[in-house]
Formats: sequence, structure tokens, C-alpha cells
Amino acid sequence: MPKIVVQVMPKQELLDPQGKAVAGALSRLGKSHFNDVRVGKRFEITTDREISGEIMEEVAHIADELLANGVIEDVISIDVLPEDAEGTEVDELEGAEA
Amino acid sequence: MPKIVVQVMPKQELLDPQGKAVAGALSRLGKSHFNDVRVGKRFEITTDREISGEIMEEVAHIADELLANGVIEDVISIDVLPEDAEGTEVDELEGAEA
Repeated sequence: MPKIVVQVMPKQELLDPQGKAVAGALSRLGKSHFNDVRVGKRFEITTDREISGEIMEEVAHIADELLANGVIEDVISIDVLPEDAEGTEVDELEGAEA
Repeated sequence: MPKIVVQVMPKQELLDPQGKAVAGALSRLGKSHFNDVRVGKRFEITTDREISGEIMEEVAHIADELLANGVIEDVISIDVLPEDAEGTEVDELEGAEA
């Protein structure tokens, strides 16, 4: 079944306490060249229907109404996940590390 | 400055209470054709250094050690964010809705 990924981030102009906490931890680990971190949410929505313009519009509406708090967050992307995507990217990276 | 996006999701085999809550809300809204939802995290990490293999390996290490709880989560992707990415996808979608 198709999966749609919705990504939500805190609005740029807002303080991101979670992000600040991670950035602080990185700095204490001597990694201050990573000087800003922002933490958002990633939703994977599975549907038993075919992907269509109508389904994507419905997800965009759900994203705005249910998944993001419009006062403090922005929906930054809505994409259809390629069928075999789960874990592919990481596998490729692990190959690079070895 | 370059931004690197790390995406973390709950392990497939684990129950995802947040996801279940969202799926339940969708079902009550009569949208049960969205039959599964999983909720993960999206980190945007800004660095004042050039992107290199070394920097990406460092982020992969940070992702495993700090950003994901290896017992319950998987790091599913680590990507460099194109410079003008923020908001582009959503603008394109909004054009499609009008």
C-alpha cells in the first residue's frame, strides 16, 4: 500500500527548545561546528487507495488541520514514499562508512 | 550554511502509540482509507563547515548516538538539504490546490 510522508517543522522565527538542547549537547561534545539544530516531525501515512491528486489534496488538508499546529509549525513537504524506500538510504550510508 | 536532515522513525516491529492516535482520529473523521500512521522525528542540523564525507560520517555517528534511541528507533535517512529547499515543496502543493 502506498505511503505518504508529511514533514512538519517549527516555524523559522520561533525558538526551538528541543533543537537548542541537541545543539547544546553537540557543543559539549566538542562538535560546535554543528551550530544549529531544529527538531520537527515526520509522519508516514499508509493508504489503501491509489495515489491521486485528490488523495494528495486530502493529505495536505489533514496535514494543516491535524498534523501541524499552524500557530507554531509549518508543513514543509508532502511526498509519496517510493515503495522500497524504508532503510535504503541508511544501507547506502552504512556501505560508505565501512 | 549547509543543512543536513536526519530522519528517525520508530522501529517497524514496535507499536507506535502516537501513530495509532492519529490513525484513530482520521478514522473518526471518516478517513479510514488512511489506515496506518507512524510518527517519527526530523532533525535539521546546520554546520559552518563544507559538506564532506567526514562531516556526513560524523552526522551518521551523531544520529546513532544522540538523535535516535537505538532500542526503539531507526535512523532512516541522512541527506544534505538543497540550499533553497525550505518551503519549496509546500508552495508547489499550494499552487496545485488553487
